[in-house]
Amino acid sequence: MKIEVWSDYVCPFCYIGKRRLEHALERFPNKDQVEVVYKSFELDPNSAVHHEGDINDMLAKKYGMSREEAVAANNNVIQAARSVGLNYDFDRMKYTNTFDAHRLAHFASEKGLPAPLTERLMEAYFTEGAFLGDHEELAKIAEEVGLNREEVLEVLKSDAYSQQVRDDENEAMQLGVRGVPFFVLDGKFAVSGAQPDSVFDQALEKAWGERPALTVLGNDVDDLDGCADGACAVPQTKPE
Amino acid sequence: MKIEVWSDYVCPFCYIGKRRLEHALERFPNKDQVEVVYKSFELDPNSAVHHEGDINDMLAKKYGMSREEAVAANNNVIQAARSVGLNYDFDRMKYTNTFDAHRLAHFASEKGLPAPLTERLMEAYFTEGAFLGDHEELAKIAEEVGLNREEVLEVLKSDAYSQQVRDDENEAMQLGVRGVPFFVLDGKFAVSGAQPDSVFDQALEKAWGERPALTVLGNDVDDLDGCADGACAVPQTKPE
Repeated sequence: MKIEVWSDYVCPFCYIGKRRLEHALERFPNKDQVEVVYKSFELDPNSAVHHEGDINDMLAKKYGMSREEAVAANNNVIQAARSVGLNYDFDRMKYTNTFDAHRLAHFASEKGLPAPLTERLMEAYFTEGAFLGDHEELAKIAEEVGLNREEVLEVLKSDAYSQQVRDDENEAMQLGVRGVPFFVLDGKFAVSGAQPDSVFDQALEKAWGERPALTVLGNDVDDLDGCADGACAVPQTKPE
Repeated sequence: MKIEVWSDYVCPFCYIGKRRLEHALERFPNKDQVEVVYKSFELDPNSAVHHEGDINDMLAKKYGMSREEAVAANNNVIQAARSVGLNYDFDRMKYTNTFDAHRLAHFASEKGLPAPLTERLMEAYFTEGAFLGDHEELAKIAEEVGLNREEVLEVLKSDAYSQQVRDDENEAMQLGVRGVPFFVLDGKFAVSGAQPDSVFDQALEKAWGERPALTVLGNDVDDLDGCADGACAVPQTKPE
């Protein structure tokens, strides 16, 4: 079973949703047969890399509230994060454009390290005040999960993996994704947002129960016009 | 709708099956909503790069037949190829190990050019006697479809994309693929081998008719603990 997750590294409920999914998977008896794939989604593709003020100021400005109101609102998010074991530090968070971080994640996928990189990027952003808009800082995080620092800097300097980021985002658009996190189980069931634990449990059970069995159409495989070995044996049946 | 195709560049029925699928897609009213993805599969991962004798000799040796019998057998394949508009030239075919060609295809995917490269590799091998075991020859083919020659040679010299080739092959093993070409439609219907045209037509219709609609579980998207914009608006609902 495959779970695709569209999320962004600077989306507070994405990291919370990630934990809720992980906790649900820990409870799920068939967890060994579940593959989780993180897909790129930028909350704001037009965001600047550098922003004035902290994230409380940004929120206050955007929604026309006072800084105190913004802090209070973020406290609700802090509580939600704490309920899944995460310690969000809004005072240190450095909101930024995440396009390069998403490109880096596709490079990590190529190297077989997408899961540790995704986790580490979110941990660094939400709990350690890491600035994901800086190539050196991204390279440091990448190195911690086992990627080669020089290769990472090379990737970040180029436009490598831009197309993969766009492809993921186009796929989200086609699915009608309006917000993240957005979880798709075997292309059939979706969970939108950091829903309660019970919704993740239900989604895993439903998707598992209805996972597709592969129906093979046409003649039996032994008669096929196909190649089963190195010399590509000529089939016994005549060509059409 | 997504069609995944496991195939190898040196598998005669893979190229024939590719054409049958393409012809079926031309007849299919919803062809614009179909995405075709070619996946790596090596007929013989242990094959040497260089082989003595031509492909008729190889087949004769493998199956303990005379060279004349092998030529006659390959004539059946030539006829099958001709029936879909392909001119196979067995006298010039240079069987080889295709691991590097598959790595190259993953690089082409990253650059948005997987389809033209796959087509051109098969055309070059089956009809022009191209030697796909040679990096210079692969680079020439890659350049023809728009890839950068120097980048391609760099990729081929390294072990880049090895993991992606292995991942595709492991996925095939998990699906129980015994021979190629192997076509999987939306993870639900499979076509094994270069089956008759009618089977491809039926597969497209069935898979289209039963394509999954995404069922969204949990609360309405408007109440979600999710982030729909750059500032990641704090939801109105209280956290759990």
